[in-house]
Amino acid sequence: MSQESIGLIGGTGPQGRGLAMRLAQAGFRVWVGSRSPERAKETAASLNTQAGTTNIEGAGNAEVVAGSKYVLLTVPFDSAVQTVEGLSGHFTAGKVFVDVTVPLRFEKGGPTIVELPEGSASAHLRRIVPEGIPFVGAFKTLPAHLLEHVYTPLECDTFVFGDDESAKAEVMEIARRIPTLRPVDVGDLGAAPFVEGMTALVIRINRTLKSREGRYRIVGAGS
Amino acid sequence: MSQESIGLIGGTGPQGRGLAMRLAQAGFRVWVGSRSPERAKETAASLNTQAGTTNIEGAGNAEVVAGSKYVLLTVPFDSAVQTVEGLSGHFTAGKVFVDVTVPLRFEKGGPTIVELPEGSASAHLRRIVPEGIPFVGAFKTLPAHLLEHVYTPLECDTFVFGDDESAKAEVMEIARRIPTLRPVDVGDLGAAPFVEGMTALVIRINRTLKSREGRYRIVGAGS
Repeated sequence: MSQESIGLIGGTGPQGRGLAMRLAQAGFRVWVGSRSPERAKETAASLNTQAGTTNIEGAGNAEVVAGSKYVLLTVPFDSAVQTVEGLSGHFTAGKVFVDVTVPLRFEKGGPTIVELPEGSASAHLRRIVPEGIPFVGAFKTLPAHLLEHVYTPLECDTFVFGDDESAKAEVMEIARRIPTLRPVDVGDLGAAPFVEGMTALVIRINRTLKSREGRYRIVGAGS
Repeated sequence: MSQESIGLIGGTGPQGRGLAMRLAQAGFRVWVGSRSPERAKETAASLNTQAGTTNIEGAGNAEVVAGSKYVLLTVPFDSAVQTVEGLSGHFTAGKVFVDVTVPLRFEKGGPTIVELPEGSASAHLRRIVPEGIPFVGAFKTLPAHLLEHVYTPLECDTFVFGDDESAKAEVMEIARRIPTLRPVDVGDLGAAPFVEGMTALVIRINRTLKSREGRYRIVGAGS
């Protein structure tokens, strides 16, 4: 694996599969990780077929972390803490951690966000990812269903936050390589609760407007 | 005052002034309220000049509530509780309360949301507005600066929530009359924290992208 490759922990889930294909189409070398290396390899092959790419490979989560510079966490939030704790020995200096999780809870009145003592999934996970590893939040509001329709233009924004300006800029640059996706810098980790809440909100909107592909675009700021 | 008119409590503030002009241009009879009736009348006259309208009038907050079917709360959140408590005797049956407040707090890292025991300004205020009055949240993410530029098309969405479906539908119909503004139903009062958080987030975005007019549009759901 190249040091510059992008790895997805839990990349066989819906959000991971969609991001893997979009990133592969943008030219990145992408590693899809799973607890089962077998399953990861099978998924990678199927994603390459679907996306018309050859640069997606599959491996166990630990191997994916060890071999990637940018590590995206795309597991369901319920298993995020356990997954990251189990992999923490592999987060060596020079890597960037990108949190894509959202602590959704589905209630009668509509989706909402699990209350966490730190106020957000990202702030919660920041305490678990080794301190020296820059922590960035990104891609949280993009619907998995849309990402997986690899020939549908995204035509939207993704909100990127983090305390390490340099790592944030690198992740924004990765996002910018995905056609018609605009990364928008929303500041430090304090933005996490707002971005995560927007995921709950857009699922509510999808229900009301009978869509599965609603996403956000900022009008009137930037291009 | 007509029973069908729209009243703005604290309508002499930036958000109130902007909404008053947009609603007046859409043809509604608008009452701008202030603690000082004098100030309200002066503001109304100035807004009519600015917006090219004649249907904005000013009065004391109590008179505005008494005379309006739809009552929008556009005071800063800091004074929202005291203001609503002072006016509660005027909320008679048949009125609809529309909360426009956002509990913003400006910190070093960027704007954030004041933590409230109920989780949102709207849930907090719902306990103070008389029980029989339907409570709707709307217009929370629209920048005052943009609203006041009355000849700039809004070209964005506003997120409307509330537990009373009929009152919510009426407020959405009012919003729909403002050109190029689309009301989006985001469900019940449980959506309030997410919508309020988006206001903090868009101020962060405005800072980063050096704008004062950033706002949200949903892509891929509805028209």
